[in-house]
Amino acid sequence: MADAPIERVRARVLRVEPAQDDASDERVSVEEPLEIRVHAKGEREPTRVAVTMRTPGHEDELAVGFLFTEGLIDGRDDLARPAVRELSIAEGVNNVVTVRLDRAFDPSLLQRNFFATSSCGVCGKASIDQVERAVTPITERWSISRSIVAELPSALRAAQKQFDATGGLHACALFRRDGELELVREDVGRHNAMDKVIGRSVLAGRAPLVESVMMVSGRISFELVQKAAMAGVPLLCAVSAPSSLAIRAAERFGQTLVGFVRDGRCTVYSHASRVT
Amino acid sequence: MADAPIERVRARVLRVEPAQDDASDERVSVEEPLEIRVHAKGEREPTRVAVTMRTPGHEDELAVGFLFTEGLIDGRDDLARPAVRELSIAEGVNNVVTVRLDRAFDPSLLQRNFFATSSCGVCGKASIDQVERAVTPITERWSISRSIVAELPSALRAAQKQFDATGGLHACALFRRDGELELVREDVGRHNAMDKVIGRSVLAGRAPLVESVMMVSGRISFELVQKAAMAGVPLLCAVSAPSSLAIRAAERFGQTLVGFVRDGRCTVYSHASRVT
Repeated sequence: MADAPIERVRARVLRVEPAQDDASDERVSVEEPLEIRVHAKGEREPTRVAVTMRTPGHEDELAVGFLFTEGLIDGRDDLARPAVRELSIAEGVNNVVTVRLDRAFDPSLLQRNFFATSSCGVCGKASIDQVERAVTPITERWSISRSIVAELPSALRAAQKQFDATGGLHACALFRRDGELELVREDVGRHNAMDKVIGRSVLAGRAPLVESVMMVSGRISFELVQKAAMAGVPLLCAVSAPSSLAIRAAERFGQTLVGFVRDGRCTVYSHASRVT
Repeated sequence: MADAPIERVRARVLRVEPAQDDASDERVSVEEPLEIRVHAKGEREPTRVAVTMRTPGHEDELAVGFLFTEGLIDGRDDLARPAVRELSIAEGVNNVVTVRLDRAFDPSLLQRNFFATSSCGVCGKASIDQVERAVTPITERWSISRSIVAELPSALRAAQKQFDATGGLHACALFRRDGELELVREDVGRHNAMDKVIGRSVLAGRAPLVESVMMVSGRISFELVQKAAMAGVPLLCAVSAPSSLAIRAAERFGQTLVGFVRDGRCTVYSHASRVT
């Protein structure tokens, strides 16, 4: 399952061009709901945690990454082996992934209105107090050169198998400090792509990602900064712009935030000493 | 408040260019949490409904549009006059908007895990059954020419006051059938921009929008199709790609979905008879 290709579907479309119309099939990005459940140790039944609209593939990573970045699990030690045994995935029916825990699970956490999201981990909270996680400030002191940062977008694009075919997927990638690509995930939701990358790392026992550079294909919201900081990522890059709250959060979390990484340029918004 | 300009902030940044570095101030899109509350008739206290990360401005429209597209209110008749009297907006503190209803409000609706979202109205639901709204199928029979559709993106861009300055805002616009722009709203979240447009229409007593064309600046997810269909919009256009579920939903709702509207071209994904 971890290496299954991302699914695509074909849709019957009418393509209207200046010169001619062309009725044809076209590849489109797949968006399907996924229900995430947690089965705690000693419990008879799993608990429904959230529904997210996501691109099929890597459901185990998505579910584990979501639970981790939402602060519901602390790492691989909280997971049973295998962490995901129950998986019910098929087009047009309820898609469900159940994460098995090796410990108890407090359902009152869910009364704080948890839920997953295709592009925003903030939504679903019923009050502002519930938005912020307890993030451990990032204190790593390493730095990378601007020339390595400048190369990240082309490496990301080269690794994006789906984007050029459908035009509808976001990507999140993990790089080593020397610029070598380690992992890329795509999804209709940027947050899902990031949760998949982080979930893979948690499943591999590699979190926190204190030696890694993370890059996303679009804009940077507060929630992306918070998710990456939950995973300990010291340097977060994006092709497009960050929001004001994303910048404030990165400053507070000790994270270097780099936007507009394109055409050999970039803009550093926080903790600039990590880019030399 | 309805016509207040969208706020911007300046962030101290390090801009890294191939030739030189340039420390300067740069405009960034503002993202701030907003808590939406409902104050029902006869109740002493308002009820917390949701938190959304949004770009400040038009909070009354955003809150009313959210309640409408989530099926929590049916239209202007459900609102007290004025609908929004209590508004507490300031940078760095809790931003709260309270919508006053002229009727009772069933708090059990909120136990279905409601919440607002900066870019996804699906998230926050705890099970897949909660994702779909009861949408009245759209049966309007009018059509517009492809040449009018082709002109919509340039009109949208011309009306986007913020995008070029910050690179970080999405836009949603309402057009008449003859292509004339009626209303545009911008936000860090596409869904918020759409909720603002719909909320303005509800406040003006203009919903359902059965004579309107709606256009969004980016991609089309299931949730955008559902929100627009809740408002009765027969024709939804976007600059980029729709997802598979967005196409299926538009087919079911009777909505014409047009993607990749750019460079004089477009692709019609559903109910193509409305584009001639």
